[in-house]
Amino acid sequence: MTYCLAAQVKSGLVFTSDSRTNAGIDQVSTYSKMHTFGREGDRQFVLLSAGNLATTQGVVARLQRDIREGWESSLFTVSDMHVAADYVGAISRDQQTRLTGGGTTFEASFILGGQIGNDPPAIMLIYPEGNHISASDTTPYLQIGESKYGKPILDRIINADTSLEQAALCALVSMDSTMRSNVTVGPPIDLVIYRAGSLRAGEHVRLNHDSPYLRELKKSWENGLAEAFRKLPPLNLAGAGEHLREVSTVSH
Amino acid sequence: MTYCLAAQVKSGLVFTSDSRTNAGIDQVSTYSKMHTFGREGDRQFVLLSAGNLATTQGVVARLQRDIREGWESSLFTVSDMHVAADYVGAISRDQQTRLTGGGTTFEASFILGGQIGNDPPAIMLIYPEGNHISASDTTPYLQIGESKYGKPILDRIINADTSLEQAALCALVSMDSTMRSNVTVGPPIDLVIYRAGSLRAGEHVRLNHDSPYLRELKKSWENGLAEAFRKLPPLNLAGAGEHLREVSTVSH
Repeated sequence: MTYCLAAQVKSGLVFTSDSRTNAGIDQVSTYSKMHTFGREGDRQFVLLSAGNLATTQGVVARLQRDIREGWESSLFTVSDMHVAADYVGAISRDQQTRLTGGGTTFEASFILGGQIGNDPPAIMLIYPEGNHISASDTTPYLQIGESKYGKPILDRIINADTSLEQAALCALVSMDSTMRSNVTVGPPIDLVIYRAGSLRAGEHVRLNHDSPYLRELKKSWENGLAEAFRKLPPLNLAGAGEHLREVSTVSH
Repeated sequence: MTYCLAAQVKSGLVFTSDSRTNAGIDQVSTYSKMHTFGREGDRQFVLLSAGNLATTQGVVARLQRDIREGWESSLFTVSDMHVAADYVGAISRDQQTRLTGGGTTFEASFILGGQIGNDPPAIMLIYPEGNHISASDTTPYLQIGESKYGKPILDRIINADTSLEQAALCALVSMDSTMRSNVTVGPPIDLVIYRAGSLRAGEHVRLNHDSPYLRELKKSWENGLAEAFRKLPPLNLAGAGEHLREVSTVSH
C-alpha cells in the first residue's frame, strides 16, 4: 500500500508520501512516490502517486519526456492547475488502457499540487478515471492510498489558517499513525514544503526510519497522546446516559 | 456503516457499538447493534453486529428463539466460547444463504464476547463465512465495520494490563474518532463493561449525542490532542534527514 497526503494552507503547500511498494508479501521494495517538476520563477509542481507501480512510473516518464522534448502539452506549457490535472489524468488513462491483462488492475491515483505564475497554489486529486477534484478552505487536504488511519488527526488540526510548519508537523504525525497501524506503509518518508508565491522548488527532505527528528517526533506524540488520555474525565457511567438493565437478556 | 469494538483485558471485557443504519443516503435509521444474552451465575454474552440488517436481525431472532424454546443448541447450552462462535457462525451462514437476490450482498460480521462458567472471558470475531478468530494478549481488541479511523488510538493505549475503566474510555475515544471522520457512524453509542468472573450482565449504558459525559470526553480529548500537538518538537528539517535538491526537477 501507499499513503500520500497534501495539505493546502494560506502560506503554502505541504506534501508527504511513504516509500513502500509491494507486489505480494515477499516482494517489498522502496520507491519514492513523490516527484517534483518546476521552472524557477514560473511554476512548480509536486506529484504524489498511489496504485500500480508500472502505471505510475509510466506516467512520470511521460511527464518528464513531454517536458524534455518540448511537447506542445506538458507541465511546462499548461495554463493553469486544472489543465495540468486534466493533462496528468489523460496520461494516466492512456497508461492504464495500454496495459491489459486477465483481471489485473493497473489503476493509479495521483495528487498534483503546485503553483503556476500568479495563480494561487492548489492541490488536486486525480482519480484512476482521469477526472479530478481540488481541495478547498473547508477541506484543506487530500489523501490517496491508505488514508483512513491518518485522517482523524488531520480533521482535528489542519485548517486554512494553520501555519506551513504546523501543517508539515501534522502531516508527519498523520503518516506516523498510518505506519503504525499498517505495515505496508513504510519509510523513508518524503516531505516537501512549498511556500506560496515563491515559485521555487520547495524544501524536500527524506526521513529514514532512523531519523533522530522522526524518532523524537514519534516519541513526543506518543507521550502527548498518553497524557491526553490520562487527563480524560474519569469514566462516569452514572451521568453518561441511559442505563439499560439486560435489555435483550433472555432468562428462563 | 457501523463501528463495533470489543476489548479484552485481564479484568474483563468492554464492548461498544454505534447505532446508525443506512440503506442509501436518505434511508438512515437508528438500530442498536449490540445484543446481550445471559443467565446469572452461569454465562454471559454480548453480540455486536455489522453488515446487512435483515441478516443480523434474523441471526439475533434465531439466537433468542433457540434459547426461549430450549433447543439442544443455543447460547445457553454451548460448552465453551469457541463452540458458541461456531454456533453463531452457522446461523449467520444459514441466514445469508436463505436470502438470494440479484447481486445484492447479505453478508454480516459479528463479535461475540462473554464468559461461560469457569472459563476465562473471551472475544471472537465471526466472519461472514462463519469461521472465527479470537483476540489474544498481543492483540487484545477486535473491530468490525468502519474500523480504521479508530484503530491508531487502540494500538497506542490498550494492552492486556489496561484497567477495565481505561479500556472503556479508550473504546469511547476510538468511537468518537470514527464518528468524527465518517458520518455514517453515529450515536447513540452502546457501551457494556463486563467484569471477569462476575457471570452477571455487564453494566450497559446508552450514550446519546447530547450525553454531557460524552461531550466532556470529546472536549477533553480534543484539548488533549491539541496540547500534544503544541508540545511536538518544532519542525527541524535541518536535522531530520537527507535534503534533496530538486531530485526529479526537469529544467531546460
